Amino acid sequence: MAGFDEDRIVRLLEARFAKTGSSLVRGIGDDAAVVRSRGAREHWVVTTDMLIEEIDFRRAWFSPAQVGHKSLAANLSDLAAMGARPRFFTVSLALPEGILPRWITACYRGMAALARRHGVLLIGGDLSRSPSGIQITITAIGETVGRRPLYRSGGRPGDILYVTGKLGMAASGLELLRQGRAAGNTRAERAALRSQRTPLPRCETGLWLARSRLVRCMMDLSDGLSIDLPRLCRASGTGAELSGSLLPVFPDSRRWHCDPLALALHGGEDFELLLAVPARQTERLEKSYPSSLPRITRIGRLCSRPGVRWSPDATAPLRPLKPAGFDHFRK
Amino acid sequence: MAGFDEDRIVRLLEARFAKTGSSLVRGIGDDAAVVRSRGAREHWVVTTDMLIEEIDFRRAWFSPAQVGHKSLAANLSDLAAMGARPRFFTVSLALPEGILPRWITACYRGMAALARRHGVLLIGGDLSRSPSGIQITITAIGETVGRRPLYRSGGRPGDILYVTGKLGMAASGLELLRQGRAAGNTRAERAALRSQRTPLPRCETGLWLARSRLVRCMMDLSDGLSIDLPRLCRASGTGAELSGSLLPVFPDSRRWHCDPLALALHGGEDFELLLAVPARQTERLEKSYPSSLPRITRIGRLCSRPGVRWSPDATAPLRPLKPAGFDHFRK
Repeated sequence: MAGFDEDRIVRLLEARFAKTGSSLVRGIGDDAAVVRSRGAREHWVVTTDMLIEEIDFRRAWFSPAQVGHKSLAANLSDLAAMGARPRFFTVSLALPEGILPRWITACYRGMAALARRHGVLLIGGDLSRSPSGIQITITAIGETVGRRPLYRSGGRPGDILYVTGKLGMAASGLELLRQGRAAGNTRAERAALRSQRTPLPRCETGLWLARSRLVRCMMDLSDGLSIDLPRLCRASGTGAELSGSLLPVFPDSRRWHCDPLALALHGGEDFELLLAVPARQTERLEKSYPSSLPRITRIGRLCSRPGVRWSPDATAPLRPLKPAGFDHFRK
Repeated sequence: MAGFDEDRIVRLLEARFAKTGSSLVRGIGDDAAVVRSRGAREHWVVTTDMLIEEIDFRRAWFSPAQVGHKSLAANLSDLAAMGARPRFFTVSLALPEGILPRWITACYRGMAALARRHGVLLIGGDLSRSPSGIQITITAIGETVGRRPLYRSGGRPGDILYVTGKLGMAASGLELLRQGRAAGNTRAERAALRSQRTPLPRCETGLWLARSRLVRCMMDLSDGLSIDLPRLCRASGTGAELSGSLLPVFPDSRRWHCDPLALALHGGEDFELLLAVPARQTERLEKSYPSSLPRITRIGRLCSRPGVRWSPDATAPLRPLKPAGFDHFRK
């Protein structure tokens, strides 16, 4: 974000606010916060995420149902990253003059369809006028029963890094929208557009991974690997080494003049999971991982040397991976 | 809100979404939602509220610390209305270009001061650019231990209505701001401005009232008595009769050309509590009510005849109380 650095502000807030209360298990700085009732077997996991017109979507490019879907999906993805089962959410909707009631209804319909699929209930919200543009803020609450959630921290040098699904698809879908190709003429175009407009949060996968007890730490990829992986490293007190040739890129995006590798490294909004697994557990993980879930791919490893380095292929020397901020809808 | 009716949308959402899950105690339609862990003694109470620039505040009239204070206060007030103790909150902040880091820090400082006073912890949030104007969305989580929260429903015909504090102060403070008298030259002016810019949520009062077990139902006054009282009546399945001469108005506002009675009926953002008490319990309530808490005042009663009626004084006949929407910052 131009003008300020989200990570810097998060650190400022951690310093100013972070305290542990009797029921607060984990506060600012992870995908979600964790609170717990005294004596309860559940941890409640709380996350919040905004979707803002002209920053995160354009009305010309998204149907109201797609806006509703995506705003909830971003929140469910944070819960998935903690290995929490989504349970409840609230919606705050700020609407400019001229929004028709049927836009609102269709937006809620998109949300409701995704909510039903994941068994999550809308429990409240707020409505307001907006002087310009639509803003949707969702807070989602999930739970883990009988075990702690997975955090970004906990990774150790030597752990193997995995991601779910393919990387760079959502960004390549955004590129299609920018090129005025919103209709989706091929299967690959439609897949990219779906990934951008109605991403599927990896709730089931996150739950399976958390329950497997084979995963040391996990987060979701919302800002892109080159921004998110350093966050996981910082939380775990490690560095990381990536192999570009291992990344599960989306090669079809070449057809609309994208660089699949650059999008896999820097594209945001994939809402895939990034996780670290002890090297001795990788075989067990790969053998027991259900084929019904989106594929997981090894992409590198954590190391003790700070910083994230990568090589485009197995022979090239490692070089620092510079964050190339994903600039959402403003170019 | 111009163009749509919040209550209508809430009813639409109740119809579309409201279901009871195993842990959901109360969903859409009250000041906050209530969820509960299996076996836990606590109920968690969840609420969410937005503060939007040019709708809810103007930067020329509010310091950043006041904006931070007020955004949290509105949420804590919802928890107070449920008789819940505030525990945690998340903050989503959308900021336009040109906001200085020190504005953000000061805004969080205002929030932190109020948070400390009520022992509530910031546990997470989201930051984003905004194409225009500041939007703050807070979700607050409270708890009640060993008892259920208080709802808007549960009032019965014959119950006596009370409010805390004075009504119309926040609206009279807004009128001062509109008249360019933001400095506050007299004690009364400063009190009105404080009520508008840094309202004090009635958390302690709400907790005391809930624990007294003398109160049948409660809500906070955010949109004004003429809008909020019909909501309590609808939830309780009753009507109500108000006596204008009993209302705890703020007479000093006459000095800046306000009508104290009109503001008490229709002014919003007072964040006082409205509650109903069985007639046979009023004496016990008034005797045991601590003098350290803001005064409570009888203002009328619930009745079986639907609708809210009022009389300006004891001798005049009852007439319907028409909602005169409090139009926030747009005139």
